[in-house]
Amino acid sequence: MRLSKLVGERFKDIPAGVSAKSHSLLLRAGYIKQVSNGVYSLLPAAQKVSLKIQNIIREEMNKVDGQEVLMPVMMPREIWDKSGRYTSIGQEMVRFKDRNDHEMLLGMTHEEAAVHLCQNTVKSYDQLPCMIYQIQTKIRDEARPRAGLLRVREFTMKDGYSFHTSSEDLNEYYDRVYHAYERIYKRIGMKNVIAISSDNGMMGGDGADEFQLIIDAGEDNLIICDNCDYKANMEIATSQIEKIEFEDEKLKEIYTEKAKTIEELSQKLNKDKKQFIKAVCYAISGNKDKVIVAFIRGDKEVNDAKLKKYLQVSDINVTDISDSGLVKGNIGCINLNQDNIIKVFDMSLKGQKGLICGANKEDYHLSGVNMERDVDVNEFVDIAKVNEGELCPHCDKPLTIKKGIEVGNIFKLGTKYSKTMEMSISMPDGSQMNPIMGCYGIGVGRCLAGIVEESSDEKGIVWPKSIAPWLVYFCPLRNDNPEVEEVAERLYQELSQKFEVLYDDRKTSAGMKLTDSELMGIPVRVVISPRSLSQSQAEITIRESGEKIMIDLSSLEEKLFELTKID
Amino acid sequence: MRLSKLVGERFKDIPAGVSAKSHSLLLRAGYIKQVSNGVYSLLPAAQKVSLKIQNIIREEMNKVDGQEVLMPVMMPREIWDKSGRYTSIGQEMVRFKDRNDHEMLLGMTHEEAAVHLCQNTVKSYDQLPCMIYQIQTKIRDEARPRAGLLRVREFTMKDGYSFHTSSEDLNEYYDRVYHAYERIYKRIGMKNVIAISSDNGMMGGDGADEFQLIIDAGEDNLIICDNCDYKANMEIATSQIEKIEFEDEKLKEIYTEKAKTIEELSQKLNKDKKQFIKAVCYAISGNKDKVIVAFIRGDKEVNDAKLKKYLQVSDINVTDISDSGLVKGNIGCINLNQDNIIKVFDMSLKGQKGLICGANKEDYHLSGVNMERDVDVNEFVDIAKVNEGELCPHCDKPLTIKKGIEVGNIFKLGTKYSKTMEMSISMPDGSQMNPIMGCYGIGVGRCLAGIVEESSDEKGIVWPKSIAPWLVYFCPLRNDNPEVEEVAERLYQELSQKFEVLYDDRKTSAGMKLTDSELMGIPVRVVISPRSLSQSQAEITIRESGEKIMIDLSSLEEKLFELTKID
Repeated sequence: MRLSKLVGERFKDIPAGVSAKSHSLLLRAGYIKQVSNGVYSLLPAAQKVSLKIQNIIREEMNKVDGQEVLMPVMMPREIWDKSGRYTSIGQEMVRFKDRNDHEMLLGMTHEEAAVHLCQNTVKSYDQLPCMIYQIQTKIRDEARPRAGLLRVREFTMKDGYSFHTSSEDLNEYYDRVYHAYERIYKRIGMKNVIAISSDNGMMGGDGADEFQLIIDAGEDNLIICDNCDYKANMEIATSQIEKIEFEDEKLKEIYTEKAKTIEELSQKLNKDKKQFIKAVCYAISGNKDKVIVAFIRGDKEVNDAKLKKYLQVSDINVTDISDSGLVKGNIGCINLNQDNIIKVFDMSLKGQKGLICGANKEDYHLSGVNMERDVDVNEFVDIAKVNEGELCPHCDKPLTIKKGIEVGNIFKLGTKYSKTMEMSISMPDGSQMNPIMGCYGIGVGRCLAGIVEESSDEKGIVWPKSIAPWLVYFCPLRNDNPEVEEVAERLYQELSQKFEVLYDDRKTSAGMKLTDSELMGIPVRVVISPRSLSQSQAEITIRESGEKIMIDLSSLEEKLFELTKID
Repeated sequence: MRLSKLVGERFKDIPAGVSAKSHSLLLRAGYIKQVSNGVYSLLPAAQKVSLKIQNIIREEMNKVDGQEVLMPVMMPREIWDKSGRYTSIGQEMVRFKDRNDHEMLLGMTHEEAAVHLCQNTVKSYDQLPCMIYQIQTKIRDEARPRAGLLRVREFTMKDGYSFHTSSEDLNEYYDRVYHAYERIYKRIGMKNVIAISSDNGMMGGDGADEFQLIIDAGEDNLIICDNCDYKANMEIATSQIEKIEFEDEKLKEIYTEKAKTIEELSQKLNKDKKQFIKAVCYAISGNKDKVIVAFIRGDKEVNDAKLKKYLQVSDINVTDISDSGLVKGNIGCINLNQDNIIKVFDMSLKGQKGLICGANKEDYHLSGVNMERDVDVNEFVDIAKVNEGELCPHCDKPLTIKKGIEVGNIFKLGTKYSKTMEMSISMPDGSQMNPIMGCYGIGVGRCLAGIVEESSDEKGIVWPKSIAPWLVYFCPLRNDNPEVEEVAERLYQELSQKFEVLYDDRKTSAGMKLTDSELMGIPVRVVISPRSLSQSQAEITIRESGEKIMIDLSSLEEKLFELTKID
């Protein structure tokens, strides 16, 4: 490919409003162009990378007996009504009416379509296990697209769905896919990926793992124990609850004036934050009649994801309580019996005494709260965020928090979809069963951007060889000199027969050429110049290490074979 | 691949309501499954074919210097407002509002997105010509999906867009793509494809060619001269207008009673249909105030596509005229001056005399109509359908009509999009110009189905080798016999290292296995059985010719190499 003809412009300055490194580099190096909020065109260089990633994914899916299919992006409401997700999924799913007023939707995931495909197609136990997968465009109307390709509204994804006659078989197959995922990340050159247990979220089912690329630009918080194997997404992570004991006292109303927040109260009363019961109020989306009040120890915060999961609702928001009858800053768990209130108690309060909570009365709190004695609690549940330094639930060592980008996820779905959609398999004894399912996702564009986050330096991108758009950047300097140009053209013809070469045929300054080669991140650069040619040599530079090698033109091909070989 | 695990069920009976051969065979052989009206899932075997077709298209596009990109399916209204197509395209374009109430659409074609991608990316004359293309899912809300994959609402398409500094350069490049298309059809094994001039339709621009697969199941009517090179889609085809002369007479009102149609009038008055002026009434979609009355010679029919193009409207429908003031069955072109009427006159009426038309009065017609003398005509235009047997406009020989499926189309777009979207290129003299564009489409699924229409027999599909999902159908008979099974498993392991093998490992009847192999259309079948093994032989059957070859197992691989080689 001649750079002069390549569609894609390179530029120096970081565009306004762009903070993520991959976003900036992909724009600046001419890989992507924004079309709408969270919607991008991939320019030729990016599409080359994307296709290479797709092919690696495809190979690994085929190795675990995956069968590639293509399900539709546009689906009728009916098949999603059966699983109940047509209504349970929120605004992130695009819905529209077709010309005949039929309700349609755009797929962001394809469990329903996968069951539809296999239903009455896969009918007997001896056809299982089987896995179908596709590499396809997904539309997901994200509330907050951000960071270029890291969180978008349209993306290319590989999604796979497996069917099993037993949980043991699912577990065994799930492990095979798990290892296939590990191979994928290794092969595409992503280094710092870890698998962690995660929440099944809207998928349902009984177990899930996320593959997280550990990187500062990540938006997921991961709780990691450096001592044992404990790793979990903040959304479901737990920690040891520190044992503290306050003196048991009588319940007493105390005047706390304008002190409302735990911070203010702790200062005013000169008590540890841990002695307070914090109340956090939430509204459930689409339900104006109820207010959730979550009670938690004063030093802790509520984890929305855990709370949502416990309440089995898709969305909650911290709410304005002005119309609810609650007294802001003085909410307490004693004598709070309004019908519109759902109370939830965190584990951190269990068995505690000598605590202070709101008195449900302006300017007053209650001290000496004994949870067992004074508060009517149905059950204590874990709804707390884990903080850095809290102790690992397994090994009692301090936990750390790292940032990650989710670059893949796999789920044990169980029979949620096969049951609701009535897909059944005939078993050897003549009985029928709903197959047990797994599902396996990996986002191509997010992997691409994740690699740029991880594999780049101040000069630009550093593509791993396995997915680089071209392996060799051929860069003649002073090619306005006819002799250089003649040799360059001939060498390009020869090299491009054997290697993927990007030929910088522009008659421009050496500085611009070298800078662009670094920005674009091509693994091996070959420079010829009047000086190198006078010695029949070329200068090779390895993008990753910066290492330079002078090589005789007669040995150039051999050297390039060695340097471009993909492990 | 083991057939026992392949997702896709084969069955014998043609499903109800299915008429097209490809639709029936693709369903029956386990290649596709319907999800909604005009929306299908591709099962693994079909996806394999699709990917092979895509790769051939990709290779040929790369050979003409195409640069693969990926533009979004989902686009914001704004970029389509610039070209005017957001409003000019009808219901076939899916529109919806995103969660922020922003108007979005799903792309069925990507001229606007292509200009958006290249705008400010390709800026200088020396970057041209350039062509970007993508292979992508398109959504098009067809009014009448039909015939399985032949006309669907969601499909995979290759669409390419080129940019040029002159018409000459576009013409030259257009020819290169034209030849690339010819190579694509040849390589995917489509035999009877012809290129014909066509209408630019909603694309705009100054020239277009359609690639039509000539096949009985086609829905396009093609006018072809077997003598000269004239070929055209019925939508724009013309023919010589037969010269006829009727005697000039005085205009006279005649009582025609209940005779309304040309057929009835011709019988009643005992006159040739050619002597009548037929009136056909149309409504313009979205315009209730106007009625179009098209006048044409009685033996001819109006070509809606020509009429639409002349009127520059996107949709017209034959209309009920009860509210319009027109007298049904007696509409005539004399004294028809209502404001709500747009009159259009076909070329077939030009200069004619002695004609008969409606008198705009119940039960009466006028005879002796002399177009020049009696009718106020602004211009005569060609709005006539060409009939079989009419004479070629070039060589005066009779024309034939053939049925075709449009399997590709290429357009010279001109500057319609670059101008409206203000994309400009700086020229050597410092001036700016709007680049001249071409665009190039080919539907992957329609090619796949078209090949099945063309390449199949009463037993099933006959895949061309270049796109067959597997090249070898390995079919042990009596593999319930442990000796056969042992040899079969070993041979499968060996063969699948070297060939794309579908292994019929089912323990089922010979009849079912052989029937399935034919239905699925795999090019080469290898049968082993207790009998053949007793002679250390296998039986090879070529799907296309039915030819059978007995071969020693020791020579099997060599023979398969020969038989599966793709030319």
